[in-house]
Amino acid sequence: MTGITAHGEKRLVLASGRAHPALAKEVARELDIELLPTTAYDFANGEIYVRFAESVRGTDVFVLQSHTTPINQWVMEQLLMVDALKRASAKRITVVAPFYPYARQDKKHRGREPISARLIADLFKTAGADRLMSVDLHAAQTQGFFDGPVDHLWAQPILTDYVRSRVDLNNTAVVSPDAGRIRVAEQWAAKFGGVPLAFVHKTRDITKPNQAVANRVVGDVEGRTAVLVDDLIDTGGTIAEAVKVVLAAGASDVIVAATHGVLSDPAAQRLSECGAREVIVTDTLPIPSDKQFPQLTILPIAPLLARAIREVFDDGSVTSLFDGVA
Amino acid sequence: MTGITAHGEKRLVLASGRAHPALAKEVARELDIELLPTTAYDFANGEIYVRFAESVRGTDVFVLQSHTTPINQWVMEQLLMVDALKRASAKRITVVAPFYPYARQDKKHRGREPISARLIADLFKTAGADRLMSVDLHAAQTQGFFDGPVDHLWAQPILTDYVRSRVDLNNTAVVSPDAGRIRVAEQWAAKFGGVPLAFVHKTRDITKPNQAVANRVVGDVEGRTAVLVDDLIDTGGTIAEAVKVVLAAGASDVIVAATHGVLSDPAAQRLSECGAREVIVTDTLPIPSDKQFPQLTILPIAPLLARAIREVFDDGSVTSLFDGVA
Amino acid sequence: MTGITAHGEKRLVLASGRAHPALAKEVARELDIELLPTTAYDFANGEIYVRFAESVRGTDVFVLQSHTTPINQWVMEQLLMVDALKRASAKRITVVAPFYPYARQDKKHRGREPISARLIADLFKTAGADRLMSVDLHAAQTQGFFDGPVDHLWAQPILTDYVRSRVDLNNTAVVSPDAGRIRVAEQWAAKFGGVPLAFVHKTRDITKPNQAVANRVVGDVEGRTAVLVDDLIDTGGTIAEAVKVVLAAGASDVIVAATHGVLSDPAAQRLSECGAREVIVTDTLPIPSDKQFPQLTILPIAPLLARAIREVFDDGSVTSLFDGVA
Amino acid sequence: MTGITAHGEKRLVLASGRAHPALAKEVARELDIELLPTTAYDFANGEIYVRFAESVRGTDVFVLQSHTTPINQWVMEQLLMVDALKRASAKRITVVAPFYPYARQDKKHRGREPISARLIADLFKTAGADRLMSVDLHAAQTQGFFDGPVDHLWAQPILTDYVRSRVDLNNTAVVSPDAGRIRVAEQWAAKFGGVPLAFVHKTRDITKPNQAVANRVVGDVEGRTAVLVDDLIDTGGTIAEAVKVVLAAGASDVIVAATHGVLSDPAAQRLSECGAREVIVTDTLPIPSDKQFPQLTILPIAPLLARAIREVFDDGSVTSLFDGVA
Amino acid sequence: MTGITAHGEKRLVLASGRAHPALAKEVARELDIELLPTTAYDFANGEIYVRFAESVRGTDVFVLQSHTTPINQWVMEQLLMVDALKRASAKRITVVAPFYPYARQDKKHRGREPISARLIADLFKTAGADRLMSVDLHAAQTQGFFDGPVDHLWAQPILTDYVRSRVDLNNTAVVSPDAGRIRVAEQWAAKFGGVPLAFVHKTRDITKPNQAVANRVVGDVEGRTAVLVDDLIDTGGTIAEAVKVVLAAGASDVIVAATHGVLSDPAAQRLSECGAREVIVTDTLPIPSDKQFPQLTILPIAPLLARAIREVFDDGSVTSLFDGVA
Amino acid sequence: MTGITAHGEKRLVLASGRAHPALAKEVARELDIELLPTTAYDFANGEIYVRFAESVRGTDVFVLQSHTTPINQWVMEQLLMVDALKRASAKRITVVAPFYPYARQDKKHRGREPISARLIADLFKTAGADRLMSVDLHAAQTQGFFDGPVDHLWAQPILTDYVRSRVDLNNTAVVSPDAGRIRVAEQWAAKFGGVPLAFVHKTRDITKPNQAVANRVVGDVEGRTAVLVDDLIDTGGTIAEAVKVVLAAGASDVIVAATHGVLSDPAAQRLSECGAREVIVTDTLPIPSDKQFPQLTILPIAPLLARAIREVFDDGSVTSLFDGVA
Repeated sequence: MTGITAHGEKRLVLASGRAHPALAKEVARELDIELLPTTAYDFANGEIYVRFAESVRGTDVFVLQSHTTPINQWVMEQLLMVDALKRASAKRITVVAPFYPYARQDKKHRGREPISARLIADLFKTAGADRLMSVDLHAAQTQGFFDGPVDHLWAQPILTDYVRSRVDLNNTAVVSPDAGRIRVAEQWAAKFGGVPLAFVHKTRDITKPNQAVANRVVGDVEGRTAVLVDDLIDTGGTIAEAVKVVLAAGASDVIVAATHGVLSDPAAQRLSECGAREVIVTDTLPIPSDKQFPQLTILPIAPLLARAIREVFDDGSVTSLFDGVA
Repeated sequence: MTGITAHGEKRLVLASGRAHPALAKEVARELDIELLPTTAYDFANGEIYVRFAESVRGTDVFVLQSHTTPINQWVMEQLLMVDALKRASAKRITVVAPFYPYARQDKKHRGREPISARLIADLFKTAGADRLMSVDLHAAQTQGFFDGPVDHLWAQPILTDYVRSRVDLNNTAVVSPDAGRIRVAEQWAAKFGGVPLAFVHKTRDITKPNQAVANRVVGDVEGRTAVLVDDLIDTGGTIAEAVKVVLAAGASDVIVAATHGVLSDPAAQRLSECGAREVIVTDTLPIPSDKQFPQLTILPIAPLLARAIREVFDDGSVTSLFDGVA
Repeated sequence: MTGITAHGEKRLVLASGRAHPALAKEVARELDIELLPTTAYDFANGEIYVRFAESVRGTDVFVLQSHTTPINQWVMEQLLMVDALKRASAKRITVVAPFYPYARQDKKHRGREPISARLIADLFKTAGADRLMSVDLHAAQTQGFFDGPVDHLWAQPILTDYVRSRVDLNNTAVVSPDAGRIRVAEQWAAKFGGVPLAFVHKTRDITKPNQAVANRVVGDVEGRTAVLVDDLIDTGGTIAEAVKVVLAAGASDVIVAATHGVLSDPAAQRLSECGAREVIVTDTLPIPSDKQFPQLTILPIAPLLARAIREVFDDGSVTSLFDGVA
Repeated sequence: MTGITAHGEKRLVLASGRAHPALAKEVARELDIELLPTTAYDFANGEIYVRFAESVRGTDVFVLQSHTTPINQWVMEQLLMVDALKRASAKRITVVAPFYPYARQDKKHRGREPISARLIADLFKTAGADRLMSVDLHAAQTQGFFDGPVDHLWAQPILTDYVRSRVDLNNTAVVSPDAGRIRVAEQWAAKFGGVPLAFVHKTRDITKPNQAVANRVVGDVEGRTAVLVDDLIDTGGTIAEAVKVVLAAGASDVIVAATHGVLSDPAAQRLSECGAREVIVTDTLPIPSDKQFPQLTILPIAPLLARAIREVFDDGSVTSLFDGVA
Repeated sequence: MTGITAHGEKRLVLASGRAHPALAKEVARELDIELLPTTAYDFANGEIYVRFAESVRGTDVFVLQSHTTPINQWVMEQLLMVDALKRASAKRITVVAPFYPYARQDKKHRGREPISARLIADLFKTAGADRLMSVDLHAAQTQGFFDGPVDHLWAQPILTDYVRSRVDLNNTAVVSPDAGRIRVAEQWAAKFGGVPLAFVHKTRDITKPNQAVANRVVGDVEGRTAVLVDDLIDTGGTIAEAVKVVLAAGASDVIVAATHGVLSDPAAQRLSECGAREVIVTDTLPIPSDKQFPQLTILPIAPLLARAIREVFDDGSVTSLFDGVA
Repeated sequence: MTGITAHGEKRLVLASGRAHPALAKEVARELDIELLPTTAYDFANGEIYVRFAESVRGTDVFVLQSHTTPINQWVMEQLLMVDALKRASAKRITVVAPFYPYARQDKKHRGREPISARLIADLFKTAGADRLMSVDLHAAQTQGFFDGPVDHLWAQPILTDYVRSRVDLNNTAVVSPDAGRIRVAEQWAAKFGGVPLAFVHKTRDITKPNQAVANRVVGDVEGRTAVLVDDLIDTGGTIAEAVKVVLAAGASDVIVAATHGVLSDPAAQRLSECGAREVIVTDTLPIPSDKQFPQLTILPIAPLLARAIREVFDDGSVTSLFDGVA
């Protein structure tokens, strides 16, 4: 037989964009590795430059970016990183996007709209991504937008474990802030041993998604601690209104829990003044001090990401990390 | 300038698989055309043979198939038709699938499942489909599974117009049979001028989708006509249980409405015996006489399909045909 | 160097559809492994559900399906299995289709037909197959329909070894049942040391492939044992007619040999009554008891499949397994 | 409605490579058009330069090349022409390759060979071809190698019409020069009203395709005019041997007919000396004077190509031009 | 013939992103049409929403965006617009990017960099663009990054016509600010009838592209009006240094001309203070008042874009619009 | 866990086309391996046949071809080799093209030309190449034409090291033969510690690339040894003219250095008679004795190729091999 034979090896590498360095460092610490040394900056006209300072030939790279404002900047940076890795002969590239960008634009509400969440999946594929990893997608169908494996991580256990320690389950109701999120609320109710379930019935002007008109609570919350659950909190309008409606319907107090703390202005003000006892999110997105407020609790997502990355590298199967099982 | 110059023309052609010939004929009648003459039969070992008896060069073809049992047979037949049209130089091929096959498998409920609805979209694309047309998709996100234009038709107005004539809106509630379909129920409630909204809170064993354990009604239906709405009725288990629970919760009577009447056994028996006053579906799928029962009303879908096909051919824009607008 | 380095490993996994469980078990037994635990069933409306009960991350999976009636059902099941494996991060996916579905529709006999065998190759590719493995393709050109490696296994030695033990080569002729298969017959004749070669010249109505009008034998069979060879026997019409014509031409007796025993009705009756001494096939397709008859001999294909799978996994090169060499 | 509306037009353009200018001119003459003015030459190191001297925006272009020696030169030139047309905004590009290059390498005879005919189809697709047009493919399966419409023209009627005028059908036999081409011979025999059919049984060393060892005639040719038919004649070895064997078997005389006159050295010598009364081919390939010989008859292929091109442009359907019908 | 036949029509539509509305209006005015009515805004977290208010089915759409700061925002907006148009059944989509984004990152200067200009081309393709139109690409090779037609417009005549009216050609030299742009300067010198050519020889730190170390003029500029030419002016550092070096080398005065006025800070200050008599750019990019300065002349690009768009729609061939000819 | 687990291995294999066997042998010798045993010959009509005589399953193959005259022959041979390797289950295929074919046709100089260098990249991709390796591309942008990793090797150090030993750097100037190659000359000047830089200003008829009209030297060469540098020398016209112009401008003598010695006729005559002291190239292309002349020095490229191949196989990072670093 001609040629040279050698033993196969594989190397896990973690690269990070500039959007949320604290999270990247935390994930690296959990994995007990250093981040891939990377140069990234903006040219004067806003074009991004990226370069890796170390060979990535043959490696299994995970490229972490947190899609906060300015979100298009960070999407493009991650695409450029993937392109550079592909051209530098990385063996496998996994895009890690804890908060999937444009996740809410996952269908055409009206004619002549884009399906932005599908476009994002295709852009990552085109740049060279082999796999995607994300946490609590707005709609699970978004997994199907990517032509390849998607590791859909499940932060709910982090939130439910914490909330369970803060309420009396005998006197709790789980409430969805609108009709579209009841499935998630139902999962919470099941996790809490079958506590009552309710939702806020409202009218939403679909052309202005950050505004909503809340109406009334359907279901029984009277005298109970209402746990309002959602996948994300953006400007906080829907949630803050829901808190008020739920309190008006007789709830004794309200806890709000969501995976992704987008917290666009004026979320901090709205949430701190809406009457909720506590607002709980994870740090899939950076939450700078000016977005924080007294009732806010931030739970760390890095341990979940690190365990998932390690399992993917090891071809392992700790199925509890994933939506359902994996 | 060298060459030959000629005026451009375009020709609309309607082809049909063998699954639901009555629907194809009805659509052709609405368009005032003949169906494309087609030979299609099964070989002894089940392989399908198709051939078109007329040239389709340069045409704008719509290939209609109704995805009833045996559903894989009809999917494959439609794929073979698309392949034959592509190789016969059709200019544009639109797959018309009023009931999108495998629509309910649109995400991974658990690890190591397929995302069958995405696979179906990719198979149509691979065979040569340029566009898709479907009615009331189980999840609107499925539009994003296809890499190209999707005409998502909206049968809800057909159903709401009919139901409005059968109830007293002053004394009606709209009920979703489970937490996952409340968004649709909410649209009905809005259409009916803001009537009350409720849903049945139940536990579903996700590995056996045709069985469900219904619990209780969340929301107020007492003394009202409950309109139970869903996108499809398969074996009828969920709906029949919901009817019983709603009646037990004090509804004066119940009307069931859904776009797609899959009506797998024992749907006819369950629905005829569940206590509903009327069960309304369209004929996106064929409903043979042994699936019918006294309370069943079947509304025709052909006018909607024909108008949409004509608009697509004419590059028109009657937006009311489409989900939201188009 | 940043990151984590580990030794590379690879794992062979064998998954099977529901069409021919006996064959899958036999191949697993030859490989001395267990089949991948798999859940697969039909929903009430015929949609298939599949799920694997064990992690397949990073594995080298072979997905075996036997394409018997209902053939479209089994094609779709295999596509769904491949999609699930792709999304579950299998490293390499080889579709094993001992009898390639739609193999006979490998060209346009007339205008506006599909090229179904090419479509099948594209569907497997789209679902996520990296490689194909099949046995004795109807036309070797079908290998070229798949954009990737195809392991074209060669069952002829299994058949020739057996037949050699059943005839006197000094008094044997090899006969092709029609003009299109003489190349195969020629290979048999060469294997048997240059025995005489003949074929049945007939007219075939190409629109009804299961019917044929046999005419006369071209070549000399008088007083010899005629070995009639083909790649497959479907309804047996062509073969049964050929047996009669060959006997009428003076053959002393007839043995029929083919790789694939499709044996659609009324093959069993036709073959048992046609006058052949013995009919020999392999079990690439399941042959239930009602398709069997006294003259039928079934040779096992599992050893060939198992050896080929093992070689592919080991990057080996036992070339005799393959058409020509590999 | 915003924008500018205009009437659609379409323009047929015929471009030609440098391999067979006489054929291109003849096709243009039949279409009553001028060829697209084209600059094409070789740089000193053999790289080809091509440019069109007239706008092709929005046109329906047919790019004719005749794949004679040096065949790789002409393949590359046609690929470059297609690339230039694609980038110059041609609307539709049809590759016209009367003799499909590498048609005989349509399968793997042995392991680790290319499937060159599939590669050629993929190269044309990659360069930008939307459609292919060819004449009498070596194997009809090659149609399936191209992912798009293929117009498979049928030169057989041109040949059979001519030969019918040269023989007495009451005393004629059709003979295939080897086992692999009997299907074609069978079609001729049917066309001639069911005249006898025979073939030459030989052993071929598959690694040296231009050499063959002819053995004997299977079938009856004694006292008849034998019409030896094939799709192409390359070096003439197989055919010349077959002529001798057929004459030795008692044929009164022999006519040879094939669509493609490749006529590589020493075909002219072999064919002129083999004893055949006449050798008939078409001019799909150029036949320079040093390849010609007294018994050679060349029939023009341009009328067939011109009619097919015109039909494709007009979206017409003169099905008799195509293999079977189209 | 079955079906409906109608005359073909085509409609030109011009859509615009939000980056440079004045340019879009100007192009529409030149074409004598209205812009496609479009809704576009940012959500609170920076995600972009776009929707077209009018049907675009079957249209020939040109999507104009000017890639100024924040450039990633405008790239993403244009991608979303293309996706929406594709899904809304536009017939053909041409991306008009007068200043091609990331044009300068067209190769790997060092290992592990992206090739960003290629990525941009692929992103547009993935979103659904059929064609690209751009003006004076940084490197002409960038045309080859897009898999389809590229209309490479040529603004040089606009600049040379203007400059010719501002200088005495008998006493002029054309100067390239660095070694990499001499080819462009050479074209200017030829246009000006063969005036002397020079360049500034400098060392550039390739990792910090906005800084440069100018050295000396190679070539003769003494006593002449030096016309410094480049494709774009970003921060103005290179150009301002070149002006000083050229003046120091004895030039009587200096005119600067470039197609694209990126003019990132501190370009306005640098250019106004560098000693150039006049700085000439076109408005491919918006130049707000705070970027303007007394010596700045802005020439309109809209007439060129409008003529090219019209030619493309009409399948015309006014070749002088394009780089070389088209 | 089901299945079989084994250790991963990898094997480097070097295959070679027929264009430049001496180079292939030299590279193999440097790697201390045998070349993959390969059968390759031409059929009588010019079609190429290739086959590998040894299994390549799972291997990391490097396919070396030197693109000399007849260049299209060698391109096609390499494509066929890649196709055969893909179908034979090679794990990774790297095309090694030391001189990239059609590298000079990397943009449209005028309308309706191909972009041949992009086409070449796409053809290699289509055939199955995963990676490309080349030396000193005519334009670095060509890297971006391939959708995957490109190892762009850098032969300049080989040339500069040699030339440094042949000149007195205190009295040397680096000269570009035309305006388009000054960037390369600038790199040489920097390498030589900042020696003076000049270029020949000429007019080139872009439609006839092998002819040029040289004018005058811009920059100072008087009394110095002029080192004329280019990436390739084809017919030698541009270089020979430049030598004369540089000598006429007072250079004391001239050395010519280029990576690729295409040396098409009449390069040998021109270069030997032009007055250059020495002409230096590498052997990326074969230089037969009739192309050689007394002043010619040929430096070996095999050590560079061998080291790069080994690094790629080992996932190493000897960045100095590559353009810039890698």
